[in-house]
Amino acid sequence: MATSYSDNRDSSYSLDAGFIESILESVENGDQRKLSELLEQLHRADIADLLEQIGPEERARLIELWGEEFEPGVLPELNDNITEEIVESLPADRLSNAVRDLESDQVVDLVEDLEPDRQEEVLDTLDDVRRASVEKLLNYPDESAGRLMQTEFVMLPVHWNVGEAIDHLRSRSGLPDGFYHVMLIDSRIRPTGQVALGKLMSSRREVELKSIAEEDFATFSVDQCQEDVAYAFKQYRLISAPVVDEAGRLMGAVTIDDAVNVLDEHAKEDMHLLAGVGDESLSDRIIDVAKQRFPWLVANLATAVLASIVIAQFSATIEAVVALAVLMPIVASMGGNAGTQSLTVAVRAIATKDLTNSNAWRVIRRESVVGLINGLVFSAIIGGIGLIWYGSAALSAVLAAAVVVTMLMAGISGILIPILLERAKVDPALASSTFVTTVTDIVGFLAFLGLGYMVFLT
Amino acid sequence: MATSYSDNRDSSYSLDAGFIESILESVENGDQRKLSELLEQLHRADIADLLEQIGPEERARLIELWGEEFEPGVLPELNDNITEEIVESLPADRLSNAVRDLESDQVVDLVEDLEPDRQEEVLDTLDDVRRASVEKLLNYPDESAGRLMQTEFVMLPVHWNVGEAIDHLRSRSGLPDGFYHVMLIDSRIRPTGQVALGKLMSSRREVELKSIAEEDFATFSVDQCQEDVAYAFKQYRLISAPVVDEAGRLMGAVTIDDAVNVLDEHAKEDMHLLAGVGDESLSDRIIDVAKQRFPWLVANLATAVLASIVIAQFSATIEAVVALAVLMPIVASMGGNAGTQSLTVAVRAIATKDLTNSNAWRVIRRESVVGLINGLVFSAIIGGIGLIWYGSAALSAVLAAAVVVTMLMAGISGILIPILLERAKVDPALASSTFVTTVTDIVGFLAFLGLGYMVFLT
Repeated sequence: MATSYSDNRDSSYSLDAGFIESILESVENGDQRKLSELLEQLHRADIADLLEQIGPEERARLIELWGEEFEPGVLPELNDNITEEIVESLPADRLSNAVRDLESDQVVDLVEDLEPDRQEEVLDTLDDVRRASVEKLLNYPDESAGRLMQTEFVMLPVHWNVGEAIDHLRSRSGLPDGFYHVMLIDSRIRPTGQVALGKLMSSRREVELKSIAEEDFATFSVDQCQEDVAYAFKQYRLISAPVVDEAGRLMGAVTIDDAVNVLDEHAKEDMHLLAGVGDESLSDRIIDVAKQRFPWLVANLATAVLASIVIAQFSATIEAVVALAVLMPIVASMGGNAGTQSLTVAVRAIATKDLTNSNAWRVIRRESVVGLINGLVFSAIIGGIGLIWYGSAALSAVLAAAVVVTMLMAGISGILIPILLERAKVDPALASSTFVTTVTDIVGFLAFLGLGYMVFLT
Repeated sequence: MATSYSDNRDSSYSLDAGFIESILESVENGDQRKLSELLEQLHRADIADLLEQIGPEERARLIELWGEEFEPGVLPELNDNITEEIVESLPADRLSNAVRDLESDQVVDLVEDLEPDRQEEVLDTLDDVRRASVEKLLNYPDESAGRLMQTEFVMLPVHWNVGEAIDHLRSRSGLPDGFYHVMLIDSRIRPTGQVALGKLMSSRREVELKSIAEEDFATFSVDQCQEDVAYAFKQYRLISAPVVDEAGRLMGAVTIDDAVNVLDEHAKEDMHLLAGVGDESLSDRIIDVAKQRFPWLVANLATAVLASIVIAQFSATIEAVVALAVLMPIVASMGGNAGTQSLTVAVRAIATKDLTNSNAWRVIRRESVVGLINGLVFSAIIGGIGLIWYGSAALSAVLAAAVVVTMLMAGISGILIPILLERAKVDPALASSTFVTTVTDIVGFLAFLGLGYMVFLT
């Protein structure tokens, strides 16, 4: 009977710290029996998390001690860099045993990020038929539906009835994992619909399959982008869907668990990109992380230098009125913050297809007005602060005016820049932040120092 | 037979602009037949998107013209504020028709965000049994598994065999939506496992149900947080799972489509919170959006004023060396950016339970070293820029030193602050950004201007 995994997780499904402690202890002591016993209590996905969270030396020792008992189901759940590390360390026979137990899409997942020679080694452990089918999947473009689908699925002729379907299924040995629908195909193996198993079971034997096909049916093509596939799964609440080749022939099936992974990865990616972080994970090496973040910091430096060049033009003004130097970060910071708010909403809405041609103008107007309203409100507040602080009405007026202008521009650029990037086929999550900050910094410093110059030096 | 929805969407599933145009045209012309014809070609989720993307006047006219044909399945797919607007506008009889067609969890979804009197009105349209079951669900806490589950599911005694199960299912009229497993219960109606329909169909009649129960089985309690439920669905690749009350009795079932919605909402929330945006959507009214963003801008203003107070302490230094005012934003900006990188990785990793007690120290060390490495690299670059720009070795040295210190502190605070907030039971996505920026701003200005003071004024 099934065990509940929550036993070794705390109330919110984090791995129990004491449990991890015991596992590491058994590794330390070289106690193989204890280790196997403890790991058996964990779900393969939790073992993968555990392996990701411990250090590389502990990981190597654990894998070695685990030995023959190694659970192959752990491999598809690991981060790419850890997969590579573990595959490197597994002896050839254990690797070949592990790969034998995986489904086609899992093998693809496993080998697609390996070095070519290591990839060859894994493929060599497969028999000819399996190797051919994995190699076929590997030929589909990266991030395509073809790479995501499994080739194990159940298809039945569309002209069959329920009785024929049930008899066929009951006589068939070995049904695939994640099997919740039968696909209906025409004589050219093109999918024409799918029937949920529940519907199949509760219908009379003489009922035609096509009359109980699901209303929500979508097909994907092998070279379609995984992100779009995952979006359709979410939007139409799909559980599984057929994938077809250029001729429309059924090649495989994508299931919801794969789609959920893609959605999750994509959400992480967007969040990371907005903050100037690439595709990194906690288990990456320090030097790789530092290198990864470098280009974003360079982009930020370029923006900051541009802002400094603007400030430099007003050196004489600042020398005359030092208060300007004291207050100028407030203007730029409020602009940057308001701009980030707009652009984040825009980037997310573009990703979820909520921001489209139909409502772009409405949203642009909205963000501009929001920028103006909050600009006016904060211009009053910040103007007040300036007045109290320096007791100068002129300085306060300059500050207030600069805040309105900057926050209005922040709203406009925060929405326009992601939309324009999207039209230019650049991922708005990737570049919006740098562009918007550049605009708000330059506008902020220019407005504040420029007005300061006009008021105090002319 | 099923239609494919992709027909009226472009290659990446955005609603086709021309198609929306035709719909709005038919609304404009008051052509009810054309409107119904066009809407029939759209999936209910796409109609919901369409309603969200058009303006409020167009929306009201469309709903009115759609009239009797109104598809109730659209309601659960809408954003809360639009649901409210549409429910307000539907005549009582049409509303009652619509609600009759929905499942229990959908009705809950529909009414939970309505004003109390409007909620009462919708509940009044239900018959007594349905009303009691919806009210029971509404009694569970907000964001709990109880609110998420549906009360329609199939349970069978754990001691039955496959034959008994199949006969029961085939004799039963009306099986629930999203039905892919039968739940096994003991004599006290406590779930003890679940059997996938595929497994049921392909097993011999005399096989015991408990011997083919799924390995991956998790139960949730009615008051468990939806986020944790969704996490478990993703982590363990679940399709459906039982929800139990305090006594462990089966009360309902959560299905993967609900879990996907929660995951999606949560990803949006984290992204929004990091950028200082609350739970807003594109269809919110301007004044609501402005109000929502206000508190975050206030927090940012407080940070900016703190930074200004630091700068003010060095007014004399700036007056003497204006170059310091020109260059100081570079230091603060690099620190802010590096800090944002660290904290975003941390917030995301905490949300996905990848950052836990087991690896916190390793990750803190990692972020500190990354901060130091990139700090050293950029100190050289920025020091070089300062030297070329102003030709002063002293200024360049001050700049370089300030950059190292600030970027190191950015790395440390970027990882420590989210971890500490999480321990203090504060959502790290909510507050990390403000705290980290405060640290990097103050450290940046203090280090740069302080060193400047020491080098140039003493």
